[in-house]
Amino acid sequence: MSQHGALENLVVLDLTRVLAGPFCTMMLADMGAKVIKIEMPVSGDDTRAYPPFRTNCNGERESLYFANINRNKQGITLNLKAQEGKEIFKKLVETADIVVENYRPGVMDKLGLGYDVLKEINPRIIYGSVSGFGNTGPYRLRPGYDILGQAMGGLMAITGSKGGEPTRAGSAMGDILGGLHLTIGLLAAINARSITGKGQRVDISLMDSVIAATENTAIKYLESGIIPPRMGNRYAAVSPYDGFKVQDGTIIIACGNQKLYEKLCTEVLDRPDMITDPRFSDMEGRLANQDDIRDVIEEKLADLTMDEAVSFILSKGIPAGPIYDISQILADPQVKEREMFVEQEHPTLGHMTVNGCAIKLDDTVPSVRTPAPALGQDNDAVLRRLGLGEGEIDALRAGGVI
Amino acid sequence: MSQHGALENLVVLDLTRVLAGPFCTMMLADMGAKVIKIEMPVSGDDTRAYPPFRTNCNGERESLYFANINRNKQGITLNLKAQEGKEIFKKLVETADIVVENYRPGVMDKLGLGYDVLKEINPRIIYGSVSGFGNTGPYRLRPGYDILGQAMGGLMAITGSKGGEPTRAGSAMGDILGGLHLTIGLLAAINARSITGKGQRVDISLMDSVIAATENTAIKYLESGIIPPRMGNRYAAVSPYDGFKVQDGTIIIACGNQKLYEKLCTEVLDRPDMITDPRFSDMEGRLANQDDIRDVIEEKLADLTMDEAVSFILSKGIPAGPIYDISQILADPQVKEREMFVEQEHPTLGHMTVNGCAIKLDDTVPSVRTPAPALGQDNDAVLRRLGLGEGEIDALRAGGVI
Repeated sequence: MSQHGALENLVVLDLTRVLAGPFCTMMLADMGAKVIKIEMPVSGDDTRAYPPFRTNCNGERESLYFANINRNKQGITLNLKAQEGKEIFKKLVETADIVVENYRPGVMDKLGLGYDVLKEINPRIIYGSVSGFGNTGPYRLRPGYDILGQAMGGLMAITGSKGGEPTRAGSAMGDILGGLHLTIGLLAAINARSITGKGQRVDISLMDSVIAATENTAIKYLESGIIPPRMGNRYAAVSPYDGFKVQDGTIIIACGNQKLYEKLCTEVLDRPDMITDPRFSDMEGRLANQDDIRDVIEEKLADLTMDEAVSFILSKGIPAGPIYDISQILADPQVKEREMFVEQEHPTLGHMTVNGCAIKLDDTVPSVRTPAPALGQDNDAVLRRLGLGEGEIDALRAGGVI
Repeated sequence: MSQHGALENLVVLDLTRVLAGPFCTMMLADMGAKVIKIEMPVSGDDTRAYPPFRTNCNGERESLYFANINRNKQGITLNLKAQEGKEIFKKLVETADIVVENYRPGVMDKLGLGYDVLKEINPRIIYGSVSGFGNTGPYRLRPGYDILGQAMGGLMAITGSKGGEPTRAGSAMGDILGGLHLTIGLLAAINARSITGKGQRVDISLMDSVIAATENTAIKYLESGIIPPRMGNRYAAVSPYDGFKVQDGTIIIACGNQKLYEKLCTEVLDRPDMITDPRFSDMEGRLANQDDIRDVIEEKLADLTMDEAVSFILSKGIPAGPIYDISQILADPQVKEREMFVEQEHPTLGHMTVNGCAIKLDDTVPSVRTPAPALGQDNDAVLRRLGLGEGEIDALRAGGVI
């Protein structure tokens, strides 16, 4: 195991706020990139005012939301509307590899800090942005929110119970998908730069990212003319593949093929007759009679706990698992072994838990190293590296530039 | 605009099947990597037998699912259980950059083709895998399905209507998230290799990937002790931020702050009294009385179409958008401008539409170039490049190795 992150050679100037952008730069920082988060003086990232909160060691209300997603980043303040702020930013761009922002398209250009300007300063700079609809097209200036990405990207239309309303995925999936696509784009551009010697622009849209995540929905619709309906937890092509109620919750059973179904009938349900019963004997029949199969399964498992039912079914070689809530996830031995949550000491919040990194690299191991920055905590160190003296830094502070 | 893809220097040996792995290698191929998809002789990838189907030019039923997600890839067949198959695979590893597989953990080791063997052949090889639970931990050998990742990763528990059942995201979101995390891990490892000179192993789990996508759920629960409930399309901290019924469908209105709410009251609802009404005057009140606000909004918009309502609300500077189904997405001008669906000629399926790439790079532009491979179509070309002669290739074919 090396002590070095996979991206330790990269310097990232991070202008992002809230979730989609900061989720991207969190992954980059977890993998060792030197991420300098640049915030507006005084106010900072909006999520510094987002719940959940904890009363910190100074008796102030401080955000755990911000602390979770901004660990491993350095933090400076810089007013990009002030001329001196622009100059300092441009100086930082000279030696950076990546600039990331999630403003509405056009904002950076208006500030005089768009890609066209930055690439003149440093042709190797990679410029990544994520916005609701991307940097092109008729909707590019529309405000973008996670829920709009989920709605207009088609995820809501296919999520929800049969006959029920279109349903939002319970986390900010539009933002998460945008952040993941942005990270891929930036790293692909890093590879391209190793060939071409120059940077480029990466332009990610929440709506595009959600469309990509609906995989074959368009192909299905175009071929059949049928708009895929919402169908709860069921899957159009396979049955039984659904949630089933047991004593203390709901479990999933996923019989992907005929052999697994027959095993389920004989070894779990004690109902070998259901193998030959014409209602269930083939996949088509099972799809048409799913409710009847569900009743038999739920009756059989009614007295078992989730743990007991899952162990029993897995022991017969049939795919199964619990529907976990977050308390059960945090207690799960697999989750612990995979270090998907990590304990961290924060200077003002004290002991806290943050999300782990889902990208497991066995040599350059991603890690949670430093807590999220206090607003402007690295101003002096970063500005001194640019050659500014104590007096100049004090003047910038007094002038509200940092 | 360059004609070269961002990853054109990379050769990927792709052993993946179904969705999570092929979605990853699709992105790599869209960005120019030379992806050689390796399938079992005769049967091939399971999804060659997945709907939707089209009767092809030979009068056979052929899968559009497979064709969509495997465009831009070359295809060879290779029986990795046969000694000659193993030898050919090892020879391919000598000059490849990346091996990707989504078998259950242990399968490649049992074949004698695990990472420990491959890195002896080529220390620069990067070995990526995606499985239900990853390569470590007590569940590593459990069967992994998308729905199990969604269930055990906690996405289902927070998705669904208020008081309703846990709900699966309507696409295979566990597989998609796994494929995205895998792609990031592989590209990070490529960057690390440029520093260390050697490859490493990337180990992605669907469950981990889903946990990461539930963002702050754990932080919220740990601080409050409250398991986040399902709440349909609403958001715990902001209101109105929900779906609202109009004449011909449902639209989203997202008032992220007090100013947007007040604008909604005066300019959309003609109800300035709702600004000062103590039930709605602050966010807390609005969260407690969401149903009342919804009734006012829906009454006001009842006679408008989705298009009319969205245009009207956007014109007032308030974030809004339609809940689109796939037919509306395909017709949308923004989606067309962003090229999220691309027309392609397939040699046996004819004219078809495939998904575009959501990763927009402005110099090394991702593209859809070649159709998905027929089973084994590139056997001769690839084996000849390894130095095999016509007779040897015929013998491999006769022996069922390719």
